[in-house]
Amino acid sequence: MEFTHIDREGKAMMVDVSAKPSTEREACARGSVIMKRETIRLIRDMGIPKGDVVAVARIAGILAAKRTPDLIPLCHPLHIASVSVDITIDEGNHKVDIEARVKTIGQTGVEMEALTAVSVAALTIYDMCKGMDKEMVLSDIMLTEKRGGKSGEWLLSHR
Amino acid sequence: MEFTHIDREGKAMMVDVSAKPSTEREACARGSVIMKRETIRLIRDMGIPKGDVVAVARIAGILAAKRTPDLIPLCHPLHIASVSVDITIDEGNHKVDIEARVKTIGQTGVEMEALTAVSVAALTIYDMCKGMDKEMVLSDIMLTEKRGGKSGEWLLSHR
Amino acid sequence: MEFTHIDREGKAMMVDVSAKPSTEREACARGSVIMKRETIRLIRDMGIPKGDVVAVARIAGILAAKRTPDLIPLCHPLHIASVSVDITIDEGNHKVDIEARVKTIGQTGVEMEALTAVSVAALTIYDMCKGMDKEMVLSDIMLTEKRGGKSGEWLLSHR
Amino acid sequence: MEFTHIDREGKAMMVDVSAKPSTEREACARGSVIMKRETIRLIRDMGIPKGDVVAVARIAGILAAKRTPDLIPLCHPLHIASVSVDITIDEGNHKVDIEARVKTIGQTGVEMEALTAVSVAALTIYDMCKGMDKEMVLSDIMLTEKRGGKSGEWLLSHR
Amino acid sequence: MEFTHIDREGKAMMVDVSAKPSTEREACARGSVIMKRETIRLIRDMGIPKGDVVAVARIAGILAAKRTPDLIPLCHPLHIASVSVDITIDEGNHKVDIEARVKTIGQTGVEMEALTAVSVAALTIYDMCKGMDKEMVLSDIMLTEKRGGKSGEWLLSHR
Amino acid sequence: MEFTHIDREGKAMMVDVSAKPSTEREACARGSVIMKRETIRLIRDMGIPKGDVVAVARIAGILAAKRTPDLIPLCHPLHIASVSVDITIDEGNHKVDIEARVKTIGQTGVEMEALTAVSVAALTIYDMCKGMDKEMVLSDIMLTEKRGGKSGEWLLSHR
Repeated sequence: MEFTHIDREGKAMMVDVSAKPSTEREACARGSVIMKRETIRLIRDMGIPKGDVVAVARIAGILAAKRTPDLIPLCHPLHIASVSVDITIDEGNHKVDIEARVKTIGQTGVEMEALTAVSVAALTIYDMCKGMDKEMVLSDIMLTEKRGGKSGEWLLSHR
Repeated sequence: MEFTHIDREGKAMMVDVSAKPSTEREACARGSVIMKRETIRLIRDMGIPKGDVVAVARIAGILAAKRTPDLIPLCHPLHIASVSVDITIDEGNHKVDIEARVKTIGQTGVEMEALTAVSVAALTIYDMCKGMDKEMVLSDIMLTEKRGGKSGEWLLSHR
Repeated sequence: MEFTHIDREGKAMMVDVSAKPSTEREACARGSVIMKRETIRLIRDMGIPKGDVVAVARIAGILAAKRTPDLIPLCHPLHIASVSVDITIDEGNHKVDIEARVKTIGQTGVEMEALTAVSVAALTIYDMCKGMDKEMVLSDIMLTEKRGGKSGEWLLSHR
Repeated sequence: MEFTHIDREGKAMMVDVSAKPSTEREACARGSVIMKRETIRLIRDMGIPKGDVVAVARIAGILAAKRTPDLIPLCHPLHIASVSVDITIDEGNHKVDIEARVKTIGQTGVEMEALTAVSVAALTIYDMCKGMDKEMVLSDIMLTEKRGGKSGEWLLSHR
Repeated sequence: MEFTHIDREGKAMMVDVSAKPSTEREACARGSVIMKRETIRLIRDMGIPKGDVVAVARIAGILAAKRTPDLIPLCHPLHIASVSVDITIDEGNHKVDIEARVKTIGQTGVEMEALTAVSVAALTIYDMCKGMDKEMVLSDIMLTEKRGGKSGEWLLSHR
Repeated sequence: MEFTHIDREGKAMMVDVSAKPSTEREACARGSVIMKRETIRLIRDMGIPKGDVVAVARIAGILAAKRTPDLIPLCHPLHIASVSVDITIDEGNHKVDIEARVKTIGQTGVEMEALTAVSVAALTIYDMCKGMDKEMVLSDIMLTEKRGGKSGEWLLSHR
């Protein structure tokens, strides 16, 4: 077991993917923003009929997925073929759940793109609600599925 | 209670801060990357003597703090006066803890900058370790302190 | 009469604003996307009840306003204090109207920020509707109001 | 007829292009900046012999074409194979005409890249001339040609 | 003597400038691209009468100055009040000389902005001429003047 | 001999690479930061045992390589397959040497990416050491190797 992004002298590097075939790849990640009961009610009440709350977070997540190699230093640039970001209000557990699914045809996987989309969508929800609730927590951000590439299909076991 | 970033018709907007005084403001946020015991040991073994692992995450966090208004749609641009990102290996609980502290002199707070620094540093750690451990979880990302501005000092109660 | 951004030898330069006072400034711009009657009807039908169409364009406009000095080479960076982007469906004239209002406290005006917000919101509407209508036209993008700075208030005469 | 970028629930998404073949594609767009007679004369007088006026707008347009997926939220990233931006002074009609042509080999068309290049070149001309003429209008920004991809060749009929 | 950007434990950080006064600051840097005699002749022949060669490098330098804190990890963001980039063809010594001058009113100096403008203008000249001459060398990039801030005026002694 | 990026009328353009085959390409560049003897000693003393100095410059270089087409106006976007940045302390000659190696599979070479990585790593070293030594010089930044593409292998002769 060793770090793929750190060479034998401990130096950071981008892994060389030039010999890898370009194949279809997909990744799915999820995460949650846990908040006060009053805050989740307000999102529920305003969300669907009046507007933009959920849309802003979704757009922020999609844009962030495209900017992943600019944010994560050793991440390879690639062309995203699709991104979708789903945001669900879980009133019972007073949290907002975010799921991002990313596809590409390329030489590396899109795990980081999916995780970045979830994280930035979650940060955007925090930003819009922070006037009411500073104690929100971004939590359980994790990869749930990965397809394509040498390692084939992977599903989070304790999903 | 209402959303500060959503107007009465439900439309997203940037809050008008032109009438707010420019004052010294500070925010601190933290979060963790929870991983397998073997993964945390490898970071510990390679981290300090050999190099760049922790440094890459720290730099990614600092750069991300400066790019916050580009990532979070309704966030105001401001001039960061300082950012520090501290990364601690908690081997007992097999997690890496990240803390970011941001200061500015400006018309809005720097909560989003601190939370963005923590999130992107955490994503960077995931990126560097994902070859060994895909099940890592980014968790407990939250604001812990906020100073300056109209609301004065705020400390996370259940810190 | 001479170009403020071109020196005596014809070379591009950023105007020196270091001696200008930092004051409150505001600008408003507008523009339209003219389209087929069927296209405007579809936006009307889907827009309000179902979702994101108008929201995506609004967010794109707000983000673009913040990125103006990165796009327009000789434009000064400044801190936007607020941006709002209003999008109105004018079914009678089968067009979508966009209006952006930007405020800052700074040494230069925010005309370019308002015009950039309108242009990028218009491009985003084109992008989302181009599968149905390639002949849409972005038109009548112009400054309508400007306040603050040495020249004081200016209103478009043939508004 | 339906929006390709909005799913059945009204949510914004990036269209999935992973199954589309990678082919040569081309798009051409144009637009104008209409201005006072005195302003167009000044550009004519300074433009060719002395310098940078037209060059700055051209470079801004080329750079903007490359940044299109960063500006237009649901636009796919792709590798531009060439961009050219032509700027013509039409003194008789006191306007500056801009034409942008973009080529790629990829899974999606480059209409948005061509339209973005025209729009940002036009905004840059506005920026450089706004000290003399605030009433300039960006107008008639439209797609004129599109080649490649499933839909084959398309030419603007009322060109 | 110690590193201002590295704390006592060797960790990178942004220096805290929140207690520094905001004052007028200026920096000037220079550098050269050394090339074959034939290459310099070609630039001379095409440069002035026909166009964009020098203009492209100048615009690239100006844009890069504005993007400095995005490129240099520990550099503070600030608002540039002016940038000028001068490019001179030194045929006798077959090199192109670049000089950049940057001003701001802020809490930190603009040395890095001036040096970044020179470096990116030099890289742009390399890019445009590399089809003819791959052996060009970017050389003697250095700070020549610095004014304002606690340390006052500084001039390069062996200028 | 002519400029590839300037057309017959002297206008800047991006070269059309749509007809070029996509092949494996590699480039290597190097450069130095020359400094006072005391400064180089301080880097040597702090560098290896205590930390981040060299790591920050390396990360800045890697990130800059990925951002090359955003900085150099006529440079084609491409997907970097790997970047490595090596930084060596040459105490005898009181300078820091930087070498960057970049690979891609694409239609254009990666010379500009390698040169940009070296330049930005050098600027970052300047930034971190400028508190001690303002007279540092970035020097001898040049291409040393290029492989792949129509012109095949090229090695700097006076290497």
